Amino acid sequence: MDKVSQSYLLDKTMGLNENNPSQITISGVIFKHIQEIPVKGGPVLHMIKSSDPDFLGFGEVYFSLVEPHAVKAWKRHTKQTQQFAVPHGCISVVLYDDRKDSPTKGQLAKYLLGRPEHYALLRIPPLVWYGFGSNCKDVAVLANCVDIPHVPHESERLPLDSSLIPFSWSKE
Amino acid sequence: MDKVSQSYLLDKTMGLNENNPSQITISGVIFKHIQEIPVKGGPVLHMIKSSDPDFLGFGEVYFSLVEPHAVKAWKRHTKQTQQFAVPHGCISVVLYDDRKDSPTKGQLAKYLLGRPEHYALLRIPPLVWYGFGSNCKDVAVLANCVDIPHVPHESERLPLDSSLIPFSWSKE
Repeated sequence: MDKVSQSYLLDKTMGLNENNPSQITISGVIFKHIQEIPVKGGPVLHMIKSSDPDFLGFGEVYFSLVEPHAVKAWKRHTKQTQQFAVPHGCISVVLYDDRKDSPTKGQLAKYLLGRPEHYALLRIPPLVWYGFGSNCKDVAVLANCVDIPHVPHESERLPLDSSLIPFSWSKE
Repeated sequence: MDKVSQSYLLDKTMGLNENNPSQITISGVIFKHIQEIPVKGGPVLHMIKSSDPDFLGFGEVYFSLVEPHAVKAWKRHTKQTQQFAVPHGCISVVLYDDRKDSPTKGQLAKYLLGRPEHYALLRIPPLVWYGFGSNCKDVAVLANCVDIPHVPHESERLPLDSSLIPFSWSKE
């Protein structure tokens, strides 16, 4: 994928996030705005309920803190589904689909997560590569609620600058 | 409970948090330090796994943001167990036990939650009153992972300055 088409896709997905969050850019990925309830003293932010129609199961909930302008990439899981929300700070998540039988093989997608405009849940299916970086001056809190417990060797990693993924974090 | 005994209990529980977190001050309450894993770009903070020996079940995970020096109090649930962790900012949680058959009826307890010294999980059983306030200059993120989904009218509230609970938030 050359730079032009990469930019086109990123611009397209950025637009989707802001204007049409229910559209799927990579097969199996779900991006949906979730509720923020105004409360005196600070809002309540929904994330995941067992009664959600699309609830997958609960394996673990944990947090990944991201220092300003830091990047954590690349990783994918073979079995576990990732579900991200960012209650504090702001993060860009980049996804890359190289699943051989995927209808969206070769697609890159980028999502902004963070309050108040982009308080949303991003679901990343197994075998889709993901990485994320902080966009703002404060530390970001990425909450991840996964559907099955952590299993050693169930995930794979690539270095930040891997040539296998047509995206450059250094240009972010 | 007079001011002297209230202070004594609060001092005692503050000491417990810092020095002996496994001790229980109110029957059914669990306070335990949870793992923070150093990672380049920002640490990973554990919260709850379905494989934890004391896992209760998963109902919902959500966030309550607490503005600097704001207080949210008082509330208790009749069925749901609350499980708090604070991945960003710092919070004081005050508990009050007026369960008629509790061995710790009448006890107040206070816990500090927040990184790095007090990154911990606080489990609050049904029918124990709780309130929390931010202690620091930045907004705090309180994550709550409850064992059963939200049910309307399953919780009760008292005003911040209720005389039924022998604790004054205005002195905090």
